[in-house]
Amino acid sequence: MRFDDVTAVTPAGTSGRYTAQVDPQWSIAGKPNGGYLLALCARAAQAELSAEGEHHPHVVAASATYLSPTAFGPARLDVEELRRGRGTSVLRVRLSDDDGTPRLEAHVTCGRLRDDAEPHHDNVTAPDVPPIEQCVRLPVDGPGFQVPIMGVLAEHLDPACLGWATGAPSGAGELRGYLAFDDGREPDALALLLAVDAFPPATFDLGLGGWVPTLHLSAWVRALPAPGPLVVRQAARLVEASMVDETCDVWDSRGRLVATGHQLAGVRVPRPA
Amino acid sequence: MRFDDVTAVTPAGTSGRYTAQVDPQWSIAGKPNGGYLLALCARAAQAELSAEGEHHPHVVAASATYLSPTAFGPARLDVEELRRGRGTSVLRVRLSDDDGTPRLEAHVTCGRLRDDAEPHHDNVTAPDVPPIEQCVRLPVDGPGFQVPIMGVLAEHLDPACLGWATGAPSGAGELRGYLAFDDGREPDALALLLAVDAFPPATFDLGLGGWVPTLHLSAWVRALPAPGPLVVRQAARLVEASMVDETCDVWDSRGRLVATGHQLAGVRVPRPA
Repeated sequence: MRFDDVTAVTPAGTSGRYTAQVDPQWSIAGKPNGGYLLALCARAAQAELSAEGEHHPHVVAASATYLSPTAFGPARLDVEELRRGRGTSVLRVRLSDDDGTPRLEAHVTCGRLRDDAEPHHDNVTAPDVPPIEQCVRLPVDGPGFQVPIMGVLAEHLDPACLGWATGAPSGAGELRGYLAFDDGREPDALALLLAVDAFPPATFDLGLGGWVPTLHLSAWVRALPAPGPLVVRQAARLVEASMVDETCDVWDSRGRLVATGHQLAGVRVPRPA
Repeated sequence: MRFDDVTAVTPAGTSGRYTAQVDPQWSIAGKPNGGYLLALCARAAQAELSAEGEHHPHVVAASATYLSPTAFGPARLDVEELRRGRGTSVLRVRLSDDDGTPRLEAHVTCGRLRDDAEPHHDNVTAPDVPPIEQCVRLPVDGPGFQVPIMGVLAEHLDPACLGWATGAPSGAGELRGYLAFDDGREPDALALLLAVDAFPPATFDLGLGGWVPTLHLSAWVRALPAPGPLVVRQAARLVEASMVDETCDVWDSRGRLVATGHQLAGVRVPRPA
């Protein structure tokens, strides 16, 4: 199923309520990807906003708190408008399972990004990544678990940060590479919400395996991406107290920083012997 | 008024509802500081949690969306528990003016930070800051506006990043220095929510003056701070499309990274002539 189909929402008859189908392919180890769910929440926010026309067509920021893993299949989205301003509108979206169990809650800020904007100050150094032909596409068979989303996302990683796949992580805590939809769909503001949480956890590069459940994710969309594969850098900042904070920066084919994600996630750290 | 007093909340009789007083001293240019308001929301979350005992005594993450400037004086806090887990609890807090106008909404995650935790991986380089005696305390008289919060927070900045105060910003987009409560109150997890948004905007160091209204702020509390002044680095990552994303890192007197804030804020950029 395509990204636009798996993030589609349908009005549920009650004001501010939508239904959706959480697709099992957009998942890791049996759990829906957090960026996919954030994009789904943004679609619901945009659906709610659309009644006012096209003033705020782009997601510019989205911030989510994940409560527990979302079930596949039917889901409910409850949208409340918190602010309708001249420049931006803010909506809260709660995603629940079909039985009403809340799974995540997001704040979505929509506005308008201009095609002709240019950076005034950019202090985020772009990574040096080899040509995509020299990078390695991540398979659906992950390290000890299945990663079905790798069938619909084409992720090509710099071999220099793939040591974890052969038991020799670099220890730098950084993954770099390319990201594109496998079906050729071009990136847009909505897709960037997925992009900031679509790479494997940077903790793999520290030799810390296993699932890294996202607690909080904040995504800033800084510019409209040009067509072509995105360049992504996922970096672990601090691993402590069974948590890691990771910063994920995303550049488009023009080399422009188009999105950043910051997340706090759980991680298993072996105890010293 | 002391920090603990200006973040105090009182049960309002209705389940999950509290009242508070937004103090005019904890403000910049007539608007309450965003970190102060986030700490106030966290106090409300903790009050709501306290019925269950002391299992989750520390804020470990808080993420807020600011809708419009909060008024000074009486405020209302509505708290809803979204998750009560074994390791963490998550609460949503909405702060409204006395008349019910919503001003910000936060997700607060509470858990327990252990005194004996140690970093497993730390990729966040601490700044080189001169001794506090060689730094300059920021005054209440700010650049074109009053900053009353500088009367209750002692902020000593590295002179090397104070060029903006004399019309010669460095252009690096980074402010470094020390932060303490003026009355000697020691930092704790709650105070770190304030610390990640208490420095002047790093855009001052880019020659961009004026108010930088926070749209989103996410704060991670990574460790319990030791007594003594905090070291703070506020850095602008990208300025584009009338917005800046800033990362604020906070170290304690042991040199441990204890908190990080990520915010997306509005900023005025002069148009090219």
